[in-house]
Amino acid sequence: MSSADPRAIMLLSCPDRSGLVSRISHFIYERGGNILDLDEHVDTSEKMFFIRVSWSTSNFSIPACELHDAFAPLAKEFGASWNISLGDRKMRVAIFVSKYDHCLQDLLWRHSIGEFAIDIPLIVSNHPDLEPLAARYGIPFHVFPVTAATKEEVEREEIDLLQQHDVDAVVLARYMQVLSPQFVNRYHSRVINIHHSFLPAFVGSSPYRQANERGVKIIGATSHYVTEDLDQGPIIEQDIVRITHKDTLDDLIRKGRDLERLVLARALRLHSEQRILVNGKKTVVFD
Amino acid sequence: MSSADPRAIMLLSCPDRSGLVSRISHFIYERGGNILDLDEHVDTSEKMFFIRVSWSTSNFSIPACELHDAFAPLAKEFGASWNISLGDRKMRVAIFVSKYDHCLQDLLWRHSIGEFAIDIPLIVSNHPDLEPLAARYGIPFHVFPVTAATKEEVEREEIDLLQQHDVDAVVLARYMQVLSPQFVNRYHSRVINIHHSFLPAFVGSSPYRQANERGVKIIGATSHYVTEDLDQGPIIEQDIVRITHKDTLDDLIRKGRDLERLVLARALRLHSEQRILVNGKKTVVFD
Amino acid sequence: MSSADPRAIMLLSCPDRSGLVSRISHFIYERGGNILDLDEHVDTSEKMFFIRVSWSTSNFSIPACELHDAFAPLAKEFGASWNISLGDRKMRVAIFVSKYDHCLQDLLWRHSIGEFAIDIPLIVSNHPDLEPLAARYGIPFHVFPVTAATKEEVEREEIDLLQQHDVDAVVLARYMQVLSPQFVNRYHSRVINIHHSFLPAFVGSSPYRQANERGVKIIGATSHYVTEDLDQGPIIEQDIVRITHKDTLDDLIRKGRDLERLVLARALRLHSEQRILVNGKKTVVFD
Amino acid sequence: MSSADPRAIMLLSCPDRSGLVSRISHFIYERGGNILDLDEHVDTSEKMFFIRVSWSTSNFSIPACELHDAFAPLAKEFGASWNISLGDRKMRVAIFVSKYDHCLQDLLWRHSIGEFAIDIPLIVSNHPDLEPLAARYGIPFHVFPVTAATKEEVEREEIDLLQQHDVDAVVLARYMQVLSPQFVNRYHSRVINIHHSFLPAFVGSSPYRQANERGVKIIGATSHYVTEDLDQGPIIEQDIVRITHKDTLDDLIRKGRDLERLVLARALRLHSEQRILVNGKKTVVFD
Repeated sequence: MSSADPRAIMLLSCPDRSGLVSRISHFIYERGGNILDLDEHVDTSEKMFFIRVSWSTSNFSIPACELHDAFAPLAKEFGASWNISLGDRKMRVAIFVSKYDHCLQDLLWRHSIGEFAIDIPLIVSNHPDLEPLAARYGIPFHVFPVTAATKEEVEREEIDLLQQHDVDAVVLARYMQVLSPQFVNRYHSRVINIHHSFLPAFVGSSPYRQANERGVKIIGATSHYVTEDLDQGPIIEQDIVRITHKDTLDDLIRKGRDLERLVLARALRLHSEQRILVNGKKTVVFD
Repeated sequence: MSSADPRAIMLLSCPDRSGLVSRISHFIYERGGNILDLDEHVDTSEKMFFIRVSWSTSNFSIPACELHDAFAPLAKEFGASWNISLGDRKMRVAIFVSKYDHCLQDLLWRHSIGEFAIDIPLIVSNHPDLEPLAARYGIPFHVFPVTAATKEEVEREEIDLLQQHDVDAVVLARYMQVLSPQFVNRYHSRVINIHHSFLPAFVGSSPYRQANERGVKIIGATSHYVTEDLDQGPIIEQDIVRITHKDTLDDLIRKGRDLERLVLARALRLHSEQRILVNGKKTVVFD
Repeated sequence: MSSADPRAIMLLSCPDRSGLVSRISHFIYERGGNILDLDEHVDTSEKMFFIRVSWSTSNFSIPACELHDAFAPLAKEFGASWNISLGDRKMRVAIFVSKYDHCLQDLLWRHSIGEFAIDIPLIVSNHPDLEPLAARYGIPFHVFPVTAATKEEVEREEIDLLQQHDVDAVVLARYMQVLSPQFVNRYHSRVINIHHSFLPAFVGSSPYRQANERGVKIIGATSHYVTEDLDQGPIIEQDIVRITHKDTLDDLIRKGRDLERLVLARALRLHSEQRILVNGKKTVVFD
Repeated sequence: MSSADPRAIMLLSCPDRSGLVSRISHFIYERGGNILDLDEHVDTSEKMFFIRVSWSTSNFSIPACELHDAFAPLAKEFGASWNISLGDRKMRVAIFVSKYDHCLQDLLWRHSIGEFAIDIPLIVSNHPDLEPLAARYGIPFHVFPVTAATKEEVEREEIDLLQQHDVDAVVLARYMQVLSPQFVNRYHSRVINIHHSFLPAFVGSSPYRQANERGVKIIGATSHYVTEDLDQGPIIEQDIVRITHKDTLDDLIRKGRDLERLVLARALRLHSEQRILVNGKKTVVFD
């Protein structure tokens, strides 16, 4: 089984009931699919069912493009939120940045060596500073200066641009603007942010300064989906690094840069591989 | 769904083929079982399939005791290694120790607060030192002094004792004797050892001394199934802790004690919850 | 140099100025002391100097008991907070507990095998539950039921008891009462607490429940000195463990127990070895 | 105290004796230096003394360039290995690479944002592949194809080149050639390698393949000084990442890339800040 084999991935959540795994796997089996990976989770307190299945479609008896219609009746019966993605279309991801380059340069380098199965059709920024970095990797860079007065209009233009480029998800790679509810809801559970603290500690601005003042012995970084409430969205991934009394604020920023890069890259990878389901204020991550 | 609901757990491995998940989950579904947890793995290089399924048997249409016979034909068709365990019988685990108490006292304390769903019918040792600790927790303690001359005979007596107590698995909690192939093969993939190094580094004796001499910056502990080859069995769990040039051999031993306790406890928990399948020289751990 | 050699340890902090290391080390050298370990830190933003020096007193030219008076003039000149402890007197530590046993049993076991260079003259509790555990290790156990009405009077009795036993430090090993400012100030920077979260996240009660609701991917434990402000004292040590969507609240509590034990034991060890200096709201830990 | 203040750093090791800290700190103090950071370690089993002191030379009473001659008599008396580095000269580091770019691009990016206080006068490679990456950062790139027949001659040319550029240290950023003893001894304790395993596990070639076959649950990376014995040199830094049965060889390589980058960058930082002393087969790292 080579990784070039055509594949389909289904992500689905619905109220729990008997027979879900059996009926979903049977749906795949009876059409000639071979399940390569199946992860399943039941949240017993919420009585919710979550599943990710990937299967080979090389011997599939129906065209992959008809999969959606074929599965729809079952999904309706289950009352499910779901989607099926096919291996022949890569997820299209826009990256938003401001002036810090560490996350952007890391994502672009990883992308260049094939770590992510995505396309990056464009980069958006409220500053021109990182245009040369984007140019080095041959990715169009769009500058949208933002002020309080122009924000609403600018976001509308950005959304237009994203739609023109058929963008599926947005990564905020240290983008220093708060997105409006209008934007966030348009891309619900599809805008990934990196916050440079171990959330819920140190929300808001200057988390390294806050950490330095509090005297913590460990700092962190958190990647989460953006919601209307600042730094409150469902957490995708977190990681930490130890610090000591010797570490100055500059040391925290330096050590934190490595964390931010790693955590954001992992979150993007998980999202792009369809490994995340949102469960209320939390995530189910099939790693 | 309370945790007191009757449950069954199936562990199965077989050559990979289409329809395995579908047919296994259908087997459970058509008998009224509700799948609570399903983990599945395909080793694409070895073309092997591994699965762990747990389901509620509260509405099961056949008596749980008939499950084995009911599933046997399917298992035979798949060419599977498999077993089904029912929640009404706890795994029975014997602990072997010598003189070090840290692993034993930790396992017994965890057991006393209900961390493991096991029974510990007996403790075996080649020294009498830890008998008071066993007595504190009310567990019978059997002393079998071992010499090169008596080893074969002693092991035979130990196996008899284990059989009398219907023991399913053996934990070597810093037991300072090498078991014979005869013993190991009798309890294949059921003898869990803790080695106080990050295997395959520092096999054999005095791994902390070896680590100290080599000047490593991290030490580890490894829990693995015992095979005929010393310290070469399939690895279940590993963990590490950082050290510095300030740490003496005594510090390594002290820090390592904490590691050994944690790693062995995790391994026993994973084994007792039927979460491990052996795949050649490696393990599949459905954590 | 055997570890049984007589030693002295000086902990000192003062405003930074030139020559501090030279003059302190010279003070020791000219009296025949041999420095075994010296750690020094300058907080350049606060312009404060911190030092820990330990030295062998086996060839010391003055009696160790005269050290304090001999050094006092220098300390006065420096405007220093300081103390010198001699190896012939162990720190005396009281442990306060309520009903949870995991931290207490771990501390007592570690103490029994010599991990801490302390004496534990007594254990105090507001419940009788853990008396058998204390008895097993032969340590007097004093029960002081506490109500809002009696708290002030009870704390006075507890302080009397601590003074009778010449107690230097208090460890709150999951003690479920908030100490009054009167108590805290009496033992300023000498009451060590374990909080079962990654502070400053999840202050107050039920941190595991809060963590579970927030959907974090990592949980932590924090040991800190107790101050008048709940969970705000200077942090001594923190550690974390990864969790996933599979972990229920009970799993968080179970995994957290291991963290709490480890973090509290490390904090007590650091404190008992005179490795901690308080720097405002933060600590300097010479590990 | 700004970081732009002129500083000196002394690294020294010698047989242990009384008064070393006092006399070294007094040497600095009496010349008007203010100690900013002092770390000291005594290896009691080897009876060796190690120290790193950094001090401000802004009020120094002798020219910094005379420091070496001024201290030489004391060093001779102590029988010390030592050096003093002055802040006005950056360490000069050459990077050797082959075809893998991940370590090189990470080091160059870190260098470009000022993480290392070094100059990188040149990059050496046995392949031309990474020349464009070097060009992007404006660093001269020298290609020296190596065969068994030409190795001796090529190394001689490389050493000439390093000497022309006044190179202090060499970083092997996944350089796929074994250096000859002649080269290694010329730059003793100054050639830093990154090995993609948790040494001493998996020495030699294909460590990820070895790790995959052994079924370890954690992989690592190790940075060490190069000696004549392959992968046996004194270890500077190590780190690890967890893996599971799901991780293929490609996943190990991907996860390992992040480790290699981080570990090598930390090692270079420690070396460039004069924080490492070699102690036989081990290192003392004053972090």
